[in-house]
Amino acid sequence: MSIELLERLSQPNESKLVLLVLDGVGDLRTPSQPRTPLEMADTPNLDALAAAGSTGRIVPVEPGITPGSGPGHLALFGYDPREPEADIGRGVLEALGADVEIRAGDVAARGNFASADEDGNVTDRRAGRISTEECRRLVEKLRGAVPDDLGIEVRIQAGEGHRFVLLLRGRELSPELADTDPQQTGVPPEPVRAVEPEGERTAEAVRRLLRSFEETLADEERANRVLLRGFSTLPALRTLEELYGIRCGAFAGYPLYRGVAAVCGMEKLPSGQSFGEILDRVEESWDRFDYLFLHVKKTDQAGEDGSLEDKVAALEAVNRELPRLLDLGPDVLAVTGDHSTPAPMKRHSWHPVPLVLVSETAFVDPVERYDEASVIGGHLGTIPSRHLLGLMLAHGGRLAKFGA
Amino acid sequence: MSIELLERLSQPNESKLVLLVLDGVGDLRTPSQPRTPLEMADTPNLDALAAAGSTGRIVPVEPGITPGSGPGHLALFGYDPREPEADIGRGVLEALGADVEIRAGDVAARGNFASADEDGNVTDRRAGRISTEECRRLVEKLRGAVPDDLGIEVRIQAGEGHRFVLLLRGRELSPELADTDPQQTGVPPEPVRAVEPEGERTAEAVRRLLRSFEETLADEERANRVLLRGFSTLPALRTLEELYGIRCGAFAGYPLYRGVAAVCGMEKLPSGQSFGEILDRVEESWDRFDYLFLHVKKTDQAGEDGSLEDKVAALEAVNRELPRLLDLGPDVLAVTGDHSTPAPMKRHSWHPVPLVLVSETAFVDPVERYDEASVIGGHLGTIPSRHLLGLMLAHGGRLAKFGA
Repeated sequence: MSIELLERLSQPNESKLVLLVLDGVGDLRTPSQPRTPLEMADTPNLDALAAAGSTGRIVPVEPGITPGSGPGHLALFGYDPREPEADIGRGVLEALGADVEIRAGDVAARGNFASADEDGNVTDRRAGRISTEECRRLVEKLRGAVPDDLGIEVRIQAGEGHRFVLLLRGRELSPELADTDPQQTGVPPEPVRAVEPEGERTAEAVRRLLRSFEETLADEERANRVLLRGFSTLPALRTLEELYGIRCGAFAGYPLYRGVAAVCGMEKLPSGQSFGEILDRVEESWDRFDYLFLHVKKTDQAGEDGSLEDKVAALEAVNRELPRLLDLGPDVLAVTGDHSTPAPMKRHSWHPVPLVLVSETAFVDPVERYDEASVIGGHLGTIPSRHLLGLMLAHGGRLAKFGA
Repeated sequence: MSIELLERLSQPNESKLVLLVLDGVGDLRTPSQPRTPLEMADTPNLDALAAAGSTGRIVPVEPGITPGSGPGHLALFGYDPREPEADIGRGVLEALGADVEIRAGDVAARGNFASADEDGNVTDRRAGRISTEECRRLVEKLRGAVPDDLGIEVRIQAGEGHRFVLLLRGRELSPELADTDPQQTGVPPEPVRAVEPEGERTAEAVRRLLRSFEETLADEERANRVLLRGFSTLPALRTLEELYGIRCGAFAGYPLYRGVAAVCGMEKLPSGQSFGEILDRVEESWDRFDYLFLHVKKTDQAGEDGSLEDKVAALEAVNRELPRLLDLGPDVLAVTGDHSTPAPMKRHSWHPVPLVLVSETAFVDPVERYDEASVIGGHLGTIPSRHLLGLMLAHGGRLAKFGA
């Protein structure tokens, strides 16, 4: 509903919209962590945004729902991550994360090297957590084992540890295949099986491929099997440019986030991983885009590591470089996160994420600090993440009146 | 969904519900306007409502969506303005605004007098912004030019300046016609064209009508063409009385707002335009209605004019007369707006609108002032406008328990 309405009302102008995502920024106050990283960090520039603009909170999907990076970001970009067309499969997400180029119609799967005993039963689903280097050697071996007459193009890209990405390219491929990963040890891998009739042809090709892989891995001590899961194709999302006529650039140090943005039609602008390096690219490309998505990963990493100290440091680093972004003069600047990653939990969570929005038409609310508790009383209230794009377009003057 | 639920649960009683709409009441704090009109105005009676009742905010449609007067009011009356059946077309809205009686099945269009050169290309879409008086003369001419054998009744009502309303009444008319207004100069008007097969018969009649209009306007120096847009019929909404068994009266000084209310089945009670004059009519008719919609226009006008001073004065005028309304003893009184019209923006906006609700069952929250920032912390929270009617019915004891 929202997307159709926004599309219908959107109108072009010259305004520049910037979304700065501090991944996993939201955190917790608990008895053992009585102040959140945002409360502890010295962030006068971020706080100045809160004082100058409107604040509030976003709920990534629904109360209680913890999003992965895909749904978290799609919601920030205005899509409803609960809709089937916004479903980014695991295979595609892995491909995006590994910077494997993936096109419409390609089928991607997440691969694991695994160990099996003489009876063919899986003994270790991660092949003893082999090294990334070892993984690269094994992937090279797999590449050599792709049958010449398979009739489809096969790309294999090593990931970290035991992980790799398998990408199939060809005509009429289908992702309707069940996982071969049995999700337990002591049993053989699941056979390759189509879950819909249209997956049959692809299943046959993958069967041949796995037989060939198994033969070539037979002499390996640990990694003598391959497990596949998450067969998927790129979601067929209408792009932000198609929908709202905005040229979008994704500035991120990590391929996964550039990849999710590319799914929405954004141009990928790889950069270094620090906010400063990201800003270097933003400054170079400022004139080319209407909507710029900047992604800072460090806040999330620190949360996943459970390191309050690192999260504070990451926030202070963003704070230091922030004036460079303001100097570019965005018409609308929104700072928030795709989800919370509370340090005490060491993982993504469902907690609402603090939001600040600055523009000429923002209500200057009484909130003067950008942190979880302060923004509860902000003018933007607590809204689903998928409404943020509408707010940004509105503040940029890019939405016409609805009805007469 | 909401409507079906409310309908199912609604139960009759004797309570009186009053909705006082201060059109466009919400405003902004910005660097150049550090206090909103509500914050600046001296409104002890409005503030006393806040102190005595519950406060909160309503979001007209969705975050970022700026409603026109039609969707803004339909939402206050409990309808979801995003639903196709609640779509009030421009033609119908113009007819309502001009106080043209419009019935189910009538097709209304907004007309412009325009200028065209010898080649038939439009040179001015507003015929040099002719006077309202000139418009009336031309409309008289058009009336004389309606073919006798057209087979449908044609009503034409002059509006302000170059504007008029065209109303077609007859059997099996359809609004499925494209605009003839080309929205630019240097090209001829668009031909009359049905956009669905069922529009063909109506299109043929309008073609004949326009040919005749053109002949009769041929000797005019400026207004020698007619452009039509927004062909539409009354939305087929179920009335508030059908749905909830409430007899509704609309007390408004302007036909547009009475018209939108009439679409929901309210009885129209024209009045003068000041709040005092509106209250005169309310006092006369108090016993006849369960739900009374009072519309104050001045707040919106002041916002559209960008006049902080006028908006403050309009609010203080409402405040002065407010005790007369309270003396009538409404069981539920809600004061809010259909949208914000911030003076710095000089137009409708999407910003949440402050709400106060007083009734015996209202939570007396700590908020003591009726203004944008104070009510953020109110007990009603921030809710879509379309939920207000349910709250009013509930506080009036007019909703049964849902489920056992």
